[in-house]
Amino acid sequence: MSILAVGSIAFDTIRTPFGEAKDIVGGSLTYFALAASHFTDVNLVAVVGEDFGEEQMQVFAGRRIDLQGVERAKGKTFRWGGEYSYNLNSRDTLFTELNVFEGFEPRLPESYKQADIVFLGNMHPMLQLSVLEQVTSKRLAGMDSMNLWIETTRDELLEVLKRVDILKIDDSELRQLSEEYNLRRAAAAIQQMGPKMVVATRGAHGSMFFDGPDIFAVAAYPLEDEVDPTGAGDSFAGGFFGYLAQTRSLDKATLRRAVIFGSVLGSLCVEDFGTRRLERLTFDEILDRYRKIKQLTYFEEL
Amino acid sequence: MSILAVGSIAFDTIRTPFGEAKDIVGGSLTYFALAASHFTDVNLVAVVGEDFGEEQMQVFAGRRIDLQGVERAKGKTFRWGGEYSYNLNSRDTLFTELNVFEGFEPRLPESYKQADIVFLGNMHPMLQLSVLEQVTSKRLAGMDSMNLWIETTRDELLEVLKRVDILKIDDSELRQLSEEYNLRRAAAAIQQMGPKMVVATRGAHGSMFFDGPDIFAVAAYPLEDEVDPTGAGDSFAGGFFGYLAQTRSLDKATLRRAVIFGSVLGSLCVEDFGTRRLERLTFDEILDRYRKIKQLTYFEEL
Repeated sequence: MSILAVGSIAFDTIRTPFGEAKDIVGGSLTYFALAASHFTDVNLVAVVGEDFGEEQMQVFAGRRIDLQGVERAKGKTFRWGGEYSYNLNSRDTLFTELNVFEGFEPRLPESYKQADIVFLGNMHPMLQLSVLEQVTSKRLAGMDSMNLWIETTRDELLEVLKRVDILKIDDSELRQLSEEYNLRRAAAAIQQMGPKMVVATRGAHGSMFFDGPDIFAVAAYPLEDEVDPTGAGDSFAGGFFGYLAQTRSLDKATLRRAVIFGSVLGSLCVEDFGTRRLERLTFDEILDRYRKIKQLTYFEEL
Repeated sequence: MSILAVGSIAFDTIRTPFGEAKDIVGGSLTYFALAASHFTDVNLVAVVGEDFGEEQMQVFAGRRIDLQGVERAKGKTFRWGGEYSYNLNSRDTLFTELNVFEGFEPRLPESYKQADIVFLGNMHPMLQLSVLEQVTSKRLAGMDSMNLWIETTRDELLEVLKRVDILKIDDSELRQLSEEYNLRRAAAAIQQMGPKMVVATRGAHGSMFFDGPDIFAVAAYPLEDEVDPTGAGDSFAGGFFGYLAQTRSLDKATLRRAVIFGSVLGSLCVEDFGTRRLERLTFDEILDRYRKIKQLTYFEEL
């Protein structure tokens, strides 16, 4: 099974207590694709500007990533800047320049329209809807979102929610969207809005997965050196949906493993600046981290 | 194996968004004892005032709790008041009246001095030291502490740390004591100060256990209705050390199970005001919550 994924490709400027990087290739779709392509073929839908050349495109080269759906438009590529607090657990947005993203109208290549898994990355819900409407068949649809869309385009967001099977979202945004603080109640509220499944990512506190009444929770892999959390949630999504595509199954054991692969890719991403760790990642390292999370969390039954 | 436990017995005043209780029986030792006595005999060392009568003592009645070491002194019982934020994840101390606790000099009954497990509850480190010095033999010693002692009696606290095997502490206080934000580094720093093992409780985010280089992490059981977090950490300690006393083992599998029993008692405690849930708790309910945490966290190996 392949994945059709839409989202942002961007130039990121990142400041952490340990260093700074200016105009490096980032964006939610970039992290998602690098993570998911370890498991399956990923067809990208996105827009870049004239300043995003062949050199920048190299980040996707030699991987199971199809770029037919990446449009190069007149103007500059989407730019985002963020700065992290000393312990990396809070982030201020320094700037957001939508640039070519502002006029983006996603157009799916014919070969993308019969999709197995559709992943709607964090973006304006009208763009997410437009992608869904161009898809002629799909087996599973997932989405992400953020505080900006919850606050400014709530009605449109609720429309997208009705049409997807899985919401992958940060826990604070799950609370904001559901208007419930308690995560169980928050997930139950979302399940009334459409998606049967909710994956809440909680940064260094791990993640929770809700599938109907079934709940799965896993602690985060504790890193000795956290370098840069940018893209960890998108990498989580890539590991999660990538594994589901690879296994072609949605049974309970597979879904729980997918959460672990999400956690694996999220934790690996944080080990270096921007996409660096994902770019040099091997599948053996992914499997090794999976086994380490199993060791970390294993305890015997009564 | 029995446990010798020292700590506070108090009158607590608790305000949460869901209700208020004035002068109910509380204190770290009360929660610890109610939790641990489901697993083993618990010998208490504490002080109460003249206002703590037979009626209040009933909370300990009919349980595996020995009160020979509880002294009734002239004056009023220790009083503490706290108020929780709307989502229960932060707490302001309203007042602390030490009263008889101020002149407390722990005196161990002869029958307590040969102890199997010693637990030094959260209190002035000089009192913790005094208890340790009266013990003639022990197999395992654990301790708790808090920000007040880290800030005001750090040297004395480091003396106690040198003499215990396990530090059980809230994650924010682990960071404060170790002066390391990263929990792995924080635990490693503490292991250099004495205790081979560190259990960090993280409230709704679960707990982590460090035994030499081995790390175990578990997510918290997600409650649909959290009522009052008071005493959750002390109940965790009671479940943890209680189970270790019951099994008489310190192998890796037992220690990990003990963390789960800590998590079980901590999560149950939060389900009602003050000690109410612990008072009406059955051992079957404890086993049931253990099984639920196993279901919550289980995933297959690769």
